[in-house]
Amino acid sequence: MQKNVKTSTKHTEKPAEKLQTIAVARNGFSDKFGIPRQPREGSLLVTRIEFMPDFRSRDALRGIEQYSHLWLIWGFNAAAGAEDGTWKATVRPPRLGGNRRVGVFATRSPFRPNRLGLSSVRLLGVEDEGDKGPVLVVAGADMMDGSPIYDIKPYIAYTDSHPEALGGFADEHANDRLTVHWEADTTQMPQETKAALEEILQQDPRPAYQHDAARIYKLDYAGCKAEFRVSDGVLTVTKVEAGE
Amino acid sequence: MQKNVKTSTKHTEKPAEKLQTIAVARNGFSDKFGIPRQPREGSLLVTRIEFMPDFRSRDALRGIEQYSHLWLIWGFNAAAGAEDGTWKATVRPPRLGGNRRVGVFATRSPFRPNRLGLSSVRLLGVEDEGDKGPVLVVAGADMMDGSPIYDIKPYIAYTDSHPEALGGFADEHANDRLTVHWEADTTQMPQETKAALEEILQQDPRPAYQHDAARIYKLDYAGCKAEFRVSDGVLTVTKVEAGE
Repeated sequence: MQKNVKTSTKHTEKPAEKLQTIAVARNGFSDKFGIPRQPREGSLLVTRIEFMPDFRSRDALRGIEQYSHLWLIWGFNAAAGAEDGTWKATVRPPRLGGNRRVGVFATRSPFRPNRLGLSSVRLLGVEDEGDKGPVLVVAGADMMDGSPIYDIKPYIAYTDSHPEALGGFADEHANDRLTVHWEADTTQMPQETKAALEEILQQDPRPAYQHDAARIYKLDYAGCKAEFRVSDGVLTVTKVEAGE
Repeated sequence: MQKNVKTSTKHTEKPAEKLQTIAVARNGFSDKFGIPRQPREGSLLVTRIEFMPDFRSRDALRGIEQYSHLWLIWGFNAAAGAEDGTWKATVRPPRLGGNRRVGVFATRSPFRPNRLGLSSVRLLGVEDEGDKGPVLVVAGADMMDGSPIYDIKPYIAYTDSHPEALGGFADEHANDRLTVHWEADTTQMPQETKAALEEILQQDPRPAYQHDAARIYKLDYAGCKAEFRVSDGVLTVTKVEAGE
């Protein structure tokens, strides 16, 4: 016992590890309202991973196209609400209606000691963008535009995939979906933006504490502004404004 | 284009993110020789996750027992050979015999820009250890004793499990296994240590470049010293010394 306590002390004295931002996520999520919570297979939400100047290397991606899926380790940034680095032992996950406290390590909440996010994404392709170097195009990332990427790893099914894993309370709410009814005119909206927006809206982007059927909510995605209300499991899009 | 270049520059100026060590891994792997590469379901290799003083909170783990699997995000430490923080665009994965260069982001190699490891593990239990606080007991971790843990997240099958994911060259070698023949007397060895050691040896812990059938290799695990040679897919354990 004494030996272990000593070892722990030694580790505390070690300086904290520094992370370099190797790339930045680019997508239509300009604010945290609406970022999908743990999107799943088949997501249409496309994110472009643009490398920082020091990491623009086609060589570093050699062989990556052989993988259908990747892991991204990234940082919840300021707008995700975790700027001051504080953390609490328990959080109230939105999927539980925001009224049940759960240990932070039993959740994927951004409010954790180290603000690391972890997302599996589908690799759609590697594009060469001249000055910007190679760009990874992925689907299903649940992060805001501008989020820093710290690592990219191949998804290896035989070690990463555990379809039998038990998910506790996350399982109970895995299939909660709203029906989306488009009351607004969407003829000016690109088809892929509408499909992506529908995916986001199905997941109920309302803050956990605001479940008022009369209230109009607003959501920005990919330059489009959508307004909606939610009642009895149906989300009605009342207005849509196409972006610049 | 100009706009994106500017954004990237802004991110470069941002200070690197600092990580706090929240916990330390404790297991029998005292040196990097022999650490399993991407262990799979059913692994017998037990690791204890001991929290640092600031993070010893039973509350922070509330509800975690509902999950069968967890993610650990951790740091490859000095002994894993990545002390100076340098990285190369390509690496030679041991599974490919060490003679094929692959982009670092297409591998799980430790020699990456940020030395983060990612492992899915089975949660065996949460134990209360008095002074040391709660300890997570997990199976299947592929990290050295003393590795710093930066984050612990629940494994959520509906978003993390992609059994259909294609694995490129990792797939081709997923089932490479050596047959282990125990020539040495193992009667002094605890049964569970022998089973764990056999799992490690099956995965061929030899360095990628040293495939000499006559050579005797040495491996330390959980205080036991084993000696072995490998020839034609058979690993013969020639000597075993039980530890203190």
